[in-house]
Amino acid sequence: MGSTLRVGMVGYAFMGTAHSQAWRTVNRVFDLPLRAEMTAVCGTDRAGVAAAAHRLGWAGHCTDWRELVARDDIDVIDICTPGDSHAEIAIAALEAGKHVLCEKPLANTLAEAEAMVEAAARAHPGGVRAMCGFNYRRVPAIALMRDLAAAGRLGTVRHVRAAYLQDWITDPGYPLVWRLRRDRAGSGALGDLGAHVVDLAQHVTGQRITGVSAVTETFVKERPLTWGSTRRGRVTVDDAALVVGRLDGGALASFEASRFATGRKNSLRIEINGDRGSLSFDLERLNELAYYDADRPAAEQGFTTILVTEPHHPYLSAWWPPGHALGYEHTFTHQLRDLIDAIGTGADPQPSFAEALTVQLVLDAAERSVANGAGWTQVQPPLPSLL
Amino acid sequence: MGSTLRVGMVGYAFMGTAHSQAWRTVNRVFDLPLRAEMTAVCGTDRAGVAAAAHRLGWAGHCTDWRELVARDDIDVIDICTPGDSHAEIAIAALEAGKHVLCEKPLANTLAEAEAMVEAAARAHPGGVRAMCGFNYRRVPAIALMRDLAAAGRLGTVRHVRAAYLQDWITDPGYPLVWRLRRDRAGSGALGDLGAHVVDLAQHVTGQRITGVSAVTETFVKERPLTWGSTRRGRVTVDDAALVVGRLDGGALASFEASRFATGRKNSLRIEINGDRGSLSFDLERLNELAYYDADRPAAEQGFTTILVTEPHHPYLSAWWPPGHALGYEHTFTHQLRDLIDAIGTGADPQPSFAEALTVQLVLDAAERSVANGAGWTQVQPPLPSLL
Amino acid sequence: MGSTLRVGMVGYAFMGTAHSQAWRTVNRVFDLPLRAEMTAVCGTDRAGVAAAAHRLGWAGHCTDWRELVARDDIDVIDICTPGDSHAEIAIAALEAGKHVLCEKPLANTLAEAEAMVEAAARAHPGGVRAMCGFNYRRVPAIALMRDLAAAGRLGTVRHVRAAYLQDWITDPGYPLVWRLRRDRAGSGALGDLGAHVVDLAQHVTGQRITGVSAVTETFVKERPLTWGSTRRGRVTVDDAALVVGRLDGGALASFEASRFATGRKNSLRIEINGDRGSLSFDLERLNELAYYDADRPAAEQGFTTILVTEPHHPYLSAWWPPGHALGYEHTFTHQLRDLIDAIGTGADPQPSFAEALTVQLVLDAAERSVANGAGWTQVQPPLPSLL
Amino acid sequence: MGSTLRVGMVGYAFMGTAHSQAWRTVNRVFDLPLRAEMTAVCGTDRAGVAAAAHRLGWAGHCTDWRELVARDDIDVIDICTPGDSHAEIAIAALEAGKHVLCEKPLANTLAEAEAMVEAAARAHPGGVRAMCGFNYRRVPAIALMRDLAAAGRLGTVRHVRAAYLQDWITDPGYPLVWRLRRDRAGSGALGDLGAHVVDLAQHVTGQRITGVSAVTETFVKERPLTWGSTRRGRVTVDDAALVVGRLDGGALASFEASRFATGRKNSLRIEINGDRGSLSFDLERLNELAYYDADRPAAEQGFTTILVTEPHHPYLSAWWPPGHALGYEHTFTHQLRDLIDAIGTGADPQPSFAEALTVQLVLDAAERSVANGAGWTQVQPPLPSLL
Repeated sequence: MGSTLRVGMVGYAFMGTAHSQAWRTVNRVFDLPLRAEMTAVCGTDRAGVAAAAHRLGWAGHCTDWRELVARDDIDVIDICTPGDSHAEIAIAALEAGKHVLCEKPLANTLAEAEAMVEAAARAHPGGVRAMCGFNYRRVPAIALMRDLAAAGRLGTVRHVRAAYLQDWITDPGYPLVWRLRRDRAGSGALGDLGAHVVDLAQHVTGQRITGVSAVTETFVKERPLTWGSTRRGRVTVDDAALVVGRLDGGALASFEASRFATGRKNSLRIEINGDRGSLSFDLERLNELAYYDADRPAAEQGFTTILVTEPHHPYLSAWWPPGHALGYEHTFTHQLRDLIDAIGTGADPQPSFAEALTVQLVLDAAERSVANGAGWTQVQPPLPSLL
Repeated sequence: MGSTLRVGMVGYAFMGTAHSQAWRTVNRVFDLPLRAEMTAVCGTDRAGVAAAAHRLGWAGHCTDWRELVARDDIDVIDICTPGDSHAEIAIAALEAGKHVLCEKPLANTLAEAEAMVEAAARAHPGGVRAMCGFNYRRVPAIALMRDLAAAGRLGTVRHVRAAYLQDWITDPGYPLVWRLRRDRAGSGALGDLGAHVVDLAQHVTGQRITGVSAVTETFVKERPLTWGSTRRGRVTVDDAALVVGRLDGGALASFEASRFATGRKNSLRIEINGDRGSLSFDLERLNELAYYDADRPAAEQGFTTILVTEPHHPYLSAWWPPGHALGYEHTFTHQLRDLIDAIGTGADPQPSFAEALTVQLVLDAAERSVANGAGWTQVQPPLPSLL
Repeated sequence: MGSTLRVGMVGYAFMGTAHSQAWRTVNRVFDLPLRAEMTAVCGTDRAGVAAAAHRLGWAGHCTDWRELVARDDIDVIDICTPGDSHAEIAIAALEAGKHVLCEKPLANTLAEAEAMVEAAARAHPGGVRAMCGFNYRRVPAIALMRDLAAAGRLGTVRHVRAAYLQDWITDPGYPLVWRLRRDRAGSGALGDLGAHVVDLAQHVTGQRITGVSAVTETFVKERPLTWGSTRRGRVTVDDAALVVGRLDGGALASFEASRFATGRKNSLRIEINGDRGSLSFDLERLNELAYYDADRPAAEQGFTTILVTEPHHPYLSAWWPPGHALGYEHTFTHQLRDLIDAIGTGADPQPSFAEALTVQLVLDAAERSVANGAGWTQVQPPLPSLL
Repeated sequence: MGSTLRVGMVGYAFMGTAHSQAWRTVNRVFDLPLRAEMTAVCGTDRAGVAAAAHRLGWAGHCTDWRELVARDDIDVIDICTPGDSHAEIAIAALEAGKHVLCEKPLANTLAEAEAMVEAAARAHPGGVRAMCGFNYRRVPAIALMRDLAAAGRLGTVRHVRAAYLQDWITDPGYPLVWRLRRDRAGSGALGDLGAHVVDLAQHVTGQRITGVSAVTETFVKERPLTWGSTRRGRVTVDDAALVVGRLDGGALASFEASRFATGRKNSLRIEINGDRGSLSFDLERLNELAYYDADRPAAEQGFTTILVTEPHHPYLSAWWPPGHALGYEHTFTHQLRDLIDAIGTGADPQPSFAEALTVQLVLDAAERSVANGAGWTQVQPPLPSLL
C-alpha cells in the first residue's frame, strides 16, 4: 500500500457526503494497491465548502473546479455535481490526465455524454481511467445477482421487471428544487431513478435494451420556489415514467420510475425471470436476494431469501461476521474499492463512460417515444467509434 | 329461505368444479333470501358429465346446453365453458328468462360481448339478472381495498401497478392446450390474466382506463399437441403482455400478464398509490392487505399488513374466528352470495355484463396498440345504448 | 365408492360447523373407499340443533348423544363438544362399536384420557377405529414439514421453537366464556393452544418430549359473566403458558401459548433447527413453508418460502392449480380424508387416542412443574398396557 | 467543536474494528461538543497492534494497556477485549480519571461487575463517566421501540418474547475458540447473546426482570483446537439457553440464546405485547420495526412495517434521505454519539455500569436456576450502595 491516490472531489451535497464517507473508509476495510488521500474538495460557496472540508475530512478546499483539475497533486477527480456540469468537468479532468469518477447519470444530454465517452477514449491510452458511478451495482446482493445470472442460473431470460419508487414530492407544497428543473437535472424521475434500473437490467443480464415504448407524467405542474413560498415555478421534468422495452436476448422488460409512489421510500426493485430460475431484489431490504432455482426438487422449489452477508458473498469477506447488515453507504465504498483496484492494477473500472452511455441511449429513446405517443422506438446504437 | 334458486351449470372442468364447491357451500354459510339447488350440469362428453354430476353433487346432467336452457325447473344458468361459447349460451339463456352468471372474460370478441350486453339489457326489465364472474373482486382483502378507496383514504390516485404472474408454460414441452389457441381462448395471458387486473384496477379505483400502449410476446412459438408428442402446433396467443395506461382521474397505470414468470405461481398483484395513502395486495397471500396511511404520525408510517380475517371485514362475519385463513375457493362462494342476494332482492349483481364489457374494451385497445407498434390507443367508449 | 360411512356428530358450535363443512366436502374432492353421509347431529338445545341440522346439512338431529350412539344406522361418532364430555361420549361410542373422531384435547384429565385409550384398545380388535382431531397435522405445509423431517433433511434436531399466539381476550371486558372456566375447559391457553404445538413438535420430529419446566399466568383474574355485565366471575384457567422442554433426541424445545399476544390472531408458529437444515411455519400464512437447506451451495443458502400449493405437495393434487391457496377449513377436510381412508382400508388413523395421550402427559407434566415453581418435571410415560 | 476527546482503545479484533469505524465516523456525521481523536490502540501482539493501528487509523499503539491508562493525553479508554479482562482495565482506567466505554458483558463474574460499578461510582463525582457497550440499544428501530413504549403506546405489557439466534458453530468441526471456553468468555450463548436480549427487554420496557427459570445445553461437548486438528478440547460453555422470566410490571418473558439455530445468522428478535399494542423487531432486518396499534380502527389494524430511515426517527436526521438503509456498524457510531454528547455536556451516558450490572444479575439468576433443575430463582437486587 505504498502508493497513494490523491483525490479531488467536486460537490459536497448528498452525493459528496456519501463519497466522502467511502473515501474515508475504503482503505480501512479493503486491502488495495493504492491508499486514497482526501486532498481537496471544491464547491462554489466559499464558506460552505470550507465547512464541508472540515466536517467531511478533506485536507483542502477551493471554489473553482478548474483549480482542482490543474493541481499536480491530485490523481483523480470525483464529480458529485448535478448533471449539467458533468461533461465540462470530466472532459477537462481527463484532458489534464486525471482519472475520473463521475456520478450518474453520465450527462444531461446525449451529445454531452458522447463527448465524455470520446474524451475517455482519448485519455485511455495514457493510462487514465474513467468510471461512472452507478453505485447500486455494488450492493452485494446485486453483485451476487449478476454472478448467478452470468453463471447461467437463470437460463433464457424472459422478463425483467424493474422499478425505482420514491415518494418525496407527493406533497404539492414540496418546493421546486433543482432536481425538478430540466435545465439543471436534464430529466426527472426518468433520468434520476430510471437510469439506475436501466443500468441494472443491462448489467445483471449482460444484455442490451434494443427498443422501448414510454409514457411520462408530471402530476404537480407548478410548485412553490421554497417551502411555504407564494412564488411558484413550473416543474419542467417528469414526476413518473413507465417504459416497456425488449432486450436483445428476446426478453420483455418493464421499467418504472416515480417520485409519487406513496410509502415507497427508496424501493429500487428488480426481478428477472428466466426459464431456469428467477432473481428478485428490493433496495429497501438491501441485504437480501430472493432466488428461485427451477432445477431444485419440485416439492422444494420457492424463492430463497439469501441474506447476503456471508464471507463468500461479493465484498463481504472484508466486513463483519455473517448476518451483520450493511447499509446504503457501503455501495460507495465498494465502488471505490473497485475503482482503486482497477487504477492500481491498470484494469478498466466498470461501468466505463461508454457503458454508461448505453443507459443514456435508452433514456433518449424513451424520451423520443414519449414525444411520439408511446410509439415503439429503437434504441440508437453507440457510435462505432465509441465501441 | 323459503324460495329456491335452481341452477344449471354448463362446463365442469376447473371453473365448473370451483363453482360447484361454491353452490354447495353458499347457503351453509350465509343467510340468503334464496336457497340454491344444484339441479343439473351440462357437458359434451356423456360419461364425463355423468361422473362429474355424481362427484360434484348435481342432481341431473345433460350434454346439450340448449336442453338446460329450455328446462322450466332451472332459474339460473352458470356458464363455465371457454370464452368461445359464452355469447351463444348467455344470450339464449337470457332470452329464455334465465338469470346468467358467466365466467370471465365476457367473450372472445368485442362484437360478442356487445351482443351479450344488449341481451342483458333486453332481459333486465323482466327481472332477469346477468353477472360476469370476476371472482377476485370477492377476495375479502380486495373488497376491503375497494372500501378504503371508496372512502377516500387514497386521496388522488397517482399510480396503479398491477400484474398477474404465473409460470405454468415456461417449459417448452408443455402441450398446446386450448388456452394457447386463439380460436378457443380468444387471447392468451392478456385476456386470461390481464382481464382480471384490468377489472380490479377499475373496480378498486372506481375509475376507467382511457388509453393504453401495449406490447405482447409469444416466447415459445410451437408446442407439442400433447405431452411428449412429436406432433406440434403453432401457439396463436400471447405468452405475456405489458400494458401502460391512463385512468380518467389522471393516474398512470401499468398492467402485466405473464405465464412465464418463473416462480410466481398465481401472483395477482395490485398496488395503488394515492397522495393520502397506498394499498397493496398479492393473491399468493390472499388473506393480507397492505395499507399505507399517509395521515398517520410521521414516525409511525409504514405499510400495515392487515390480516383480513376479522368479523368486521367484508364477508368474514359468516366464517371462522379471527386469524383463520380463507382460500381461493371462497371467492366463488362470496360471488354467489352476492348474486343470490341480488336476485333475491331484485338488485343488480356486479359486475354487470356492461361493466365487464369495459374490460373487453381495454383489452381491445391493447390489441390494437400491439398491432400499431405500441402506439397510444384510446379505449373505445361503450355504445351509448349500452350505458 | 359403493359403501357409505354414516356419521353422527355431537356439538354444532365452532368445531361442529367446521367439521360439517369437511364432511360435506370430502367426497367431492377426494377419491375414497367410503362415502360419508351426514346422518344426524346432536345438541342439547332442541331449537338450536334443529336449525343447525338444517343449515349445516345433517339429515336428522337429536338432543341426547346416547340416542346417537344407540342408533344402528350410524357408523362413526364425531365428538365436537368441550373437553369435559369427551371421555363419556367416546367410551360409550367405542363400546357401541362406533368409530370415533374426537376433537382435541383428548380429555380434560389424564384419568379420562387413559380411560379413552383403554376403550379404544378394547374396541380395536373388532375393527373399530379411534382418532383424535389434531387438525393442524393436515395443513399441507405441516405435512410437508414432517415429510422433509422424516426424510432426514433436518439432520440432528437441536431446537424446536413453537408458539400458538392469539389475542382475543386482551380486553378485560371480554366475558367469562366456557373456555375460561376450568370445570368446562380443563385448562386455558396451555390445553387449548399448547396442545396443538406440543402435538406438532412430536409429530414433525417423530420424537417425544421427556421433561419440562413451565410457568403460567392469568393476567385478568376476574371477568364479567357476559359482555357489559356487572356480575363477575373468577377466571380459573391460565391466560398464557411458557414451557421449556427436552426431546428424547437431545433437542431443546420451547412452547408458548397465549391469548394475550396483541396483534397475533391465530399465529401457530413452529420452527425446527437441525444440523442439516431448518423448517419454519406460521399458521397465519398457512400455504407457506420456509425451508433452510444447509446442504445447498454456501452462497445460495437461505430460507426458501415454499408455496405449498403444487400437485406434488401433500393433499394438493385433489385441489386447485398451483398457487391457488387453501384455507383453515381444508385441514378438517384432509383429516376426514385420512380417517375415511383408514376406516375403509382397515388401517389405523393417526393420531390415535394413545398418541393423543402423549400430548396430555406433556401438559400434565407442565401443570405439575407450574405447581412446583417451574422445577424440572419428567413427562410420565404412557401405561405399558396402552403402548 | 473546539475541544477534543482523546481515545485509547484496548483490543483490535472484531469489536475493536467496529469501534474504530465508529470513532472515525462519528464527528463526520453528528454535531457534537467534542471531537474524537484516535490517539492509540493497545494489543498484546506487537506486530498485530502496529498493523491494526495503521489499518484502522490510530495515531499510536502499545502492547500494555497500563501504559495507555497512564498516558496524560488520553481522555477515554475504550475496552474491546474479552470479558475476563474488563474489570481490571476498567477499574484502573476509572481510578486514573479516564472515562470508560466497556464492551458487554460488563464482566465475566458478578463480583467483578460489582467492583466495576463501585469504581464507576467512586469516579463519578470527579466528572468521570462510564458506559457499557450494549450497542443494539442504538439501532434506530430499537430506539424508536423504546420511545413508543415510553410514550405508553403498548399499555400494560403482557409478554416479552426475545431471542438471539446464530448458527456459526453447528458444525462439530468448528474449533474451540475463546468464546467456547468458560475461563475466557465466562459463559456461552447465555452471556454473549442472552445478555443483549435481557438488556433490550429491560431497556425497552423500562422494567426489571425479577425471577427466572432456565435451561442450557452444550450440544457438541468436544471440539478440535483448530480447524481440522486432531487435538480436541472440552467445550466449557453453553451452546444454547432458554430462560423464562417475569418482569416487575407483571409480564411474562421468554429469552432464548443459541449458536445452533441453523439458518439464523444474526437474528436478534424481540417482540413485546401490551394491551394497547405490540412491537416486533428482528436484527436481520434492522431498518424495520413492526408496530401493532390496537387503538386504530378495527378493520385497519395490523402490524405496520415502519422503515426506520426517516429524519424524524432516532439518529436518522444526520444520515441519508428516507429509505436509505443503515447497517450494523452504525449502532457503534450512535453509541459514540451518545457517549461524546454525555461527556461533553456532563450528563450520564446510558447504560451505566450499574444498569449493565442488572443484566449480569439476571444472567446470574439464570445460571443458578440451571444448577437447580430449572427451579424458579429470584434475581438478586443490586447492592443498595450501588443504586
